[in-house]
Amino acid sequence: MTTTTYTYEPLNEITAIRLVKQLKLFSESEALTAREIGDGNLNLVFHIVNDQTNKSIIVKQALPYAKVVGESWPLSLKRATIESNALKQFGSLTPELVPDVYYHDENLAVTVMEDLSHLTISRTGLIQGETYPLLSEHIGRFLAHIAFETSDFAIKPQEKKELVAQYINPDLCNITEDLVFTDPFFDYNTNEFEETLRSDVENLWTDEEAKLEVAKLKQKFLTSSQTLVHGDLHTGSIFASERETKVIDPEFAFYGPFGFDLGQFVANLLLNTLSRPAQKRSVLLDHITKTWDVFQTTWNKLWVESKVEPFVKNPNYSDYILQQTWTDAVGYAGCELIRRTIGLAHVVDIDSLPDEERLNAQKAALRLGRYLLTHQTEISAHDFKNLIEE
Amino acid sequence: MTTTTYTYEPLNEITAIRLVKQLKLFSESEALTAREIGDGNLNLVFHIVNDQTNKSIIVKQALPYAKVVGESWPLSLKRATIESNALKQFGSLTPELVPDVYYHDENLAVTVMEDLSHLTISRTGLIQGETYPLLSEHIGRFLAHIAFETSDFAIKPQEKKELVAQYINPDLCNITEDLVFTDPFFDYNTNEFEETLRSDVENLWTDEEAKLEVAKLKQKFLTSSQTLVHGDLHTGSIFASERETKVIDPEFAFYGPFGFDLGQFVANLLLNTLSRPAQKRSVLLDHITKTWDVFQTTWNKLWVESKVEPFVKNPNYSDYILQQTWTDAVGYAGCELIRRTIGLAHVVDIDSLPDEERLNAQKAALRLGRYLLTHQTEISAHDFKNLIEE
Repeated sequence: MTTTTYTYEPLNEITAIRLVKQLKLFSESEALTAREIGDGNLNLVFHIVNDQTNKSIIVKQALPYAKVVGESWPLSLKRATIESNALKQFGSLTPELVPDVYYHDENLAVTVMEDLSHLTISRTGLIQGETYPLLSEHIGRFLAHIAFETSDFAIKPQEKKELVAQYINPDLCNITEDLVFTDPFFDYNTNEFEETLRSDVENLWTDEEAKLEVAKLKQKFLTSSQTLVHGDLHTGSIFASERETKVIDPEFAFYGPFGFDLGQFVANLLLNTLSRPAQKRSVLLDHITKTWDVFQTTWNKLWVESKVEPFVKNPNYSDYILQQTWTDAVGYAGCELIRRTIGLAHVVDIDSLPDEERLNAQKAALRLGRYLLTHQTEISAHDFKNLIEE
Repeated sequence: MTTTTYTYEPLNEITAIRLVKQLKLFSESEALTAREIGDGNLNLVFHIVNDQTNKSIIVKQALPYAKVVGESWPLSLKRATIESNALKQFGSLTPELVPDVYYHDENLAVTVMEDLSHLTISRTGLIQGETYPLLSEHIGRFLAHIAFETSDFAIKPQEKKELVAQYINPDLCNITEDLVFTDPFFDYNTNEFEETLRSDVENLWTDEEAKLEVAKLKQKFLTSSQTLVHGDLHTGSIFASERETKVIDPEFAFYGPFGFDLGQFVANLLLNTLSRPAQKRSVLLDHITKTWDVFQTTWNKLWVESKVEPFVKNPNYSDYILQQTWTDAVGYAGCELIRRTIGLAHVVDIDSLPDEERLNAQKAALRLGRYLLTHQTEISAHDFKNLIEE
């Protein structure tokens, strides 16, 4: 097989088809249809299918800029390689929970991967009332495996440091640093909220107690390289069905705190919970407790098998790490609840509600977010039920 | 000026002189004397002097292996570049407290720098009874400037992440991970202690409370990239006189916790304190309180001028970071006291004492180390006086 060196140019339907044929993923003679299905803000996503055999594939290409609400700023193409590496690394640990990666080219910023269109994006499904009975078991297992097995507890520190360097992701981390941890807590013009929320928002901007906690969580996000994190694990980054769960889109991946992904996932379940009438909430709250239960069980199983860190034999060390992970997750969930309510990027779960319900859900999200920030060490996974009802 | 590309080979007196002449640091016609003054375990160090003019210079070259107590293992030459970069970065922040760097070549693993032989290594001077009245003011200022100005509080997070990658230092960090944070706390054969200490050492090995704190401090060392740290800031890495202080040898530099260097420096002052009779200790204890006072004052001055992090306006945030820094420093000091007493690398301050005094000092160092580990959050810089007397 000859090696082709590509120079970057955005693909279109024709060149995307040409690429997958060059890669022998389809034969030259097959009649293929390509459709661009991305949202066009950060990436091009081509769904390529042979309509006769139904064999299909995804070609994802990073764009050299980000477009959000009309603004455009340059964004490193390196994120495509980070995404591809992270998918492969996740795949080596929990192959059933991520798409297969068939090909990546760094110059083209292209990853060719398994088509998951038989599944639904879990945010969309949850809004439509799907329950995804295995979602929490799968995500709890995914998070524990990734957290443990890419950390200094499973990889020799010398090798892990090379991974830290490989996953350094300044541009994408900067988006999180600004949009999750900074802008919503100051009167910045990236924020988006309705005038009826203004007094709540202004109270937050002067709430130095809550903001101190945000500052600490941001510090940890900036400086803690405990493990490879997905970096953007909301319910829109998870494909699901009754039986399957697949985590996608780790272009924000980097070495960060154990609790970060867990907190974002929990917060997005909470946002969906807040969008529902009281009697339909328990399935989401059960998913939260189950995620954390499975995380702990999986983690502890991996922990006792660790060959890298002699201190794992200390009976209280695992409890300490798990406690720290959960406390951080509660804090990160608080940040996510707030930024999804008043920051640049909202969630459809709540934004699509009728006026009064939306306002109530938004106010509840802000209240809950603040409570999580200021009570991180006191909240167990079982407490969300009471907190939501209050 | 033409650029020469070197391939690595260990220098000798003749090739070292040839190099500094090639670099035009001396003219071709000067008669130079070169003398190798390194300890030969990790580096070659040539002192090159023109005996007529007394102009002198240091040529330091990394060796591709480390020799410690007869053992030899391979060690990356990259550390020479890290050392040179760190010296230059420190020099841009506190030029009066580090040697000038005249030249570095990555392939040769050579750094040519200012000769400081008019000064004394502070460990040697302190053992001889020197007081170095400006030592703590200088080191407090050095530590605060480096800690603050290489952190996300002073450098844009995107640029700081590139520095984190540049300073990733797996081989040298691994030495610290093993010799400071692991081996002394288990029955490993790298440890070195006299049989009379065995029962104290065995008590430590089964002391799960103290070991849990070591595990947490090791975790932070492995995963916290708050700031550029020197990585080996004991009193043997500091040249001093009555008026001058110069920090040398940052080949262990990497992005680590704010409190690490401070803890190692404090511990080495404590080790010297423990080697002295009671009436001669106060000068060292005063150095500890002064170091921390100056660190805080310098840090707070830099903090209010920060343009990078909007949360610095939060009145309690600086206190939180300083508290965390000090608490970590106390813990790291505890680890250092213990590993310098029973681990592979001891300190001359104590090892050179007569039998009974040495044993008493070693027992006191172990007791104090354990106390610092298990009381990190309760100890102020002024408490060491009472702790030492007890």
